[in-house]
Amino acid sequence: MAAAPFISTSSTRARAQDSRKLGVAVCGLGKLSTDQIAPALMKTKHCRLAGIVTGTPAKAEAWKAKYGIPANSVYSYDTMQRMADNPDIDIVYVVTPNALHAQHTIQAARAGKHVFCEKPMEISVERCQQMIDACRDAKRLLGTAYRCQYDPHHLECIRLVREQVFGKPTILQAGFAIDVGPADQWRLKRELAGGGALMDVGIYALQATRYLTGEEPILVSAVETKTDPVKFAEVDESIVWTTKFPSGVVAYCSTSYKAGRIQNLRVNAENGWFELDPAFFYDGNHGRRSDGKEIRFPEIDLFAAEMDDFAQCILEGRPTKVPGEEGQRDVRILQAIYESVRSGRAVSLA
Amino acid sequence: MAAAPFISTSSTRARAQDSRKLGVAVCGLGKLSTDQIAPALMKTKHCRLAGIVTGTPAKAEAWKAKYGIPANSVYSYDTMQRMADNPDIDIVYVVTPNALHAQHTIQAARAGKHVFCEKPMEISVERCQQMIDACRDAKRLLGTAYRCQYDPHHLECIRLVREQVFGKPTILQAGFAIDVGPADQWRLKRELAGGGALMDVGIYALQATRYLTGEEPILVSAVETKTDPVKFAEVDESIVWTTKFPSGVVAYCSTSYKAGRIQNLRVNAENGWFELDPAFFYDGNHGRRSDGKEIRFPEIDLFAAEMDDFAQCILEGRPTKVPGEEGQRDVRILQAIYESVRSGRAVSLA
Repeated sequence: MAAAPFISTSSTRARAQDSRKLGVAVCGLGKLSTDQIAPALMKTKHCRLAGIVTGTPAKAEAWKAKYGIPANSVYSYDTMQRMADNPDIDIVYVVTPNALHAQHTIQAARAGKHVFCEKPMEISVERCQQMIDACRDAKRLLGTAYRCQYDPHHLECIRLVREQVFGKPTILQAGFAIDVGPADQWRLKRELAGGGALMDVGIYALQATRYLTGEEPILVSAVETKTDPVKFAEVDESIVWTTKFPSGVVAYCSTSYKAGRIQNLRVNAENGWFELDPAFFYDGNHGRRSDGKEIRFPEIDLFAAEMDDFAQCILEGRPTKVPGEEGQRDVRILQAIYESVRSGRAVSLA
Repeated sequence: MAAAPFISTSSTRARAQDSRKLGVAVCGLGKLSTDQIAPALMKTKHCRLAGIVTGTPAKAEAWKAKYGIPANSVYSYDTMQRMADNPDIDIVYVVTPNALHAQHTIQAARAGKHVFCEKPMEISVERCQQMIDACRDAKRLLGTAYRCQYDPHHLECIRLVREQVFGKPTILQAGFAIDVGPADQWRLKRELAGGGALMDVGIYALQATRYLTGEEPILVSAVETKTDPVKFAEVDESIVWTTKFPSGVVAYCSTSYKAGRIQNLRVNAENGWFELDPAFFYDGNHGRRSDGKEIRFPEIDLFAAEMDDFAQCILEGRPTKVPGEEGQRDVRILQAIYESVRSGRAVSLA
């Protein structure tokens, strides 16, 4: 999976040699940024919280006070372009609603910043392409925040598949469902979210089937249900889907904003199986294998791990394993799943 | 689910009052009959092994010797009609290859016997109807051997759904995969089996989604894969499918003859979940609930339980909960799943 080409500027290298930490501006100060990303930035080896972008002055004040962010590194969405004059910021971590990712990524890239973008990358393949183009044109790295690709439990599952420890994989199963919470949030508004459970948490199940197989699906087929059409008037509540991969592996998957806790990933192979349950939490993921062994590793901060790797890619001038193209691939498949729901047909991706 | 009407003959009643056990002839002496059904008949309260139907003289001798079956209660497939003269046989348990079920059921019914038929009931909806018609015309009861409907673990899952202990169900997940074994068996021949993994073990997953919801699916969508096209030249190896039910519940399911051990059933509901894993074994099934409680009951012999219930239905002149119509419904849906695989479209069952 190739990354967009970029050039690590000599000034970035020089500063990195001094501090070994790249400055990260968090763009969008919602719950994820507050509860996960900011605390994780306190643990990173190669990053530091250097700035913020927010539309809410009260949040700006709270973050300034808590993290000692200087006033000249606090931006609104309208003033982001001024970051071009701020050498203290190397990376913008875009954590805004899905349908604003392109706008904020492009602004950051034009200001000369590398961009790390939350999933889903955007709400259409075309917007993902605009983001990729903008970062390529600015010679900056674009990464997608797929934290599970840094989770030792998922990496172990990938190893078990690649080394065929239980033979060739045959049927994958993955599901991620959460209770989305209050009805007044942006995740339930089509204009900002682009979609519902599938875009937000189903994407983890989809990603997992892709990085486990190391293949791209050639066929998807999906069925939707909506048990609460008022709350979920604008976005999908629950979707189940099946996927076929070129090697013959098939997957059956689920996602929901209302089905309680589905949190699992299972690989059925010729000579056995292994699974993670829970699979997609921030921590506490673990699993088991058909030979009785456990899949359990010491906890790490996944947000710190993915940000440190992204920073190291910049410092070392190498591609990331989670480039914009990777985010775009998932968006394309998510759109095909929606198309299958709408059309009642299996959708070919070959 | 209404049963075909039938009349409990007074002679049957009279004999039952004497011995309280109905005579069962096992038709087809393969592995299931040898390892499960015959031993189970030794444990039943209301049945006894009274006869056999087989095309293999050596098997006839072995069974006669082992179970003391009288020579006049040993039949071949060509002589079954003579059972009409044998008052010692009340029920024929049809355990032959799928595509022979109609032939043997109809012969048994015409000989005046009640019929208990292994799953899948037959390989087409039309043949199932012929079986239903034959038993109705003969005023005999027709039952389908859905042993899981007698498993306390499955009955508990049904109770948890009906009483909405965890709220309304939202997403069901069910899968049953086995290693089918040698390539030279009838299960891999289309003419005898009608289909592969889906017909043989996938049917358990399908059944479970139906008896858990108490609803009939309105839409199915399926994807097939075949990693060993030589061994599985005639029948399906692996299929994943999704289903939608009228209440809005959706299910995602899998079956395979090659994917190792998939053996689970899970109900995700508004306020929690519960699951069985293993779910479909002859014994040892158990599960857990999201509130930390176990689902575990004392083991019973499921074959004995289903045969005793069928016998009691006859003795008491009441319908069975697993009538021929129930078997026919599954065959109809199995055919729709195959149609979805072939057409690449979701198939409506409404």
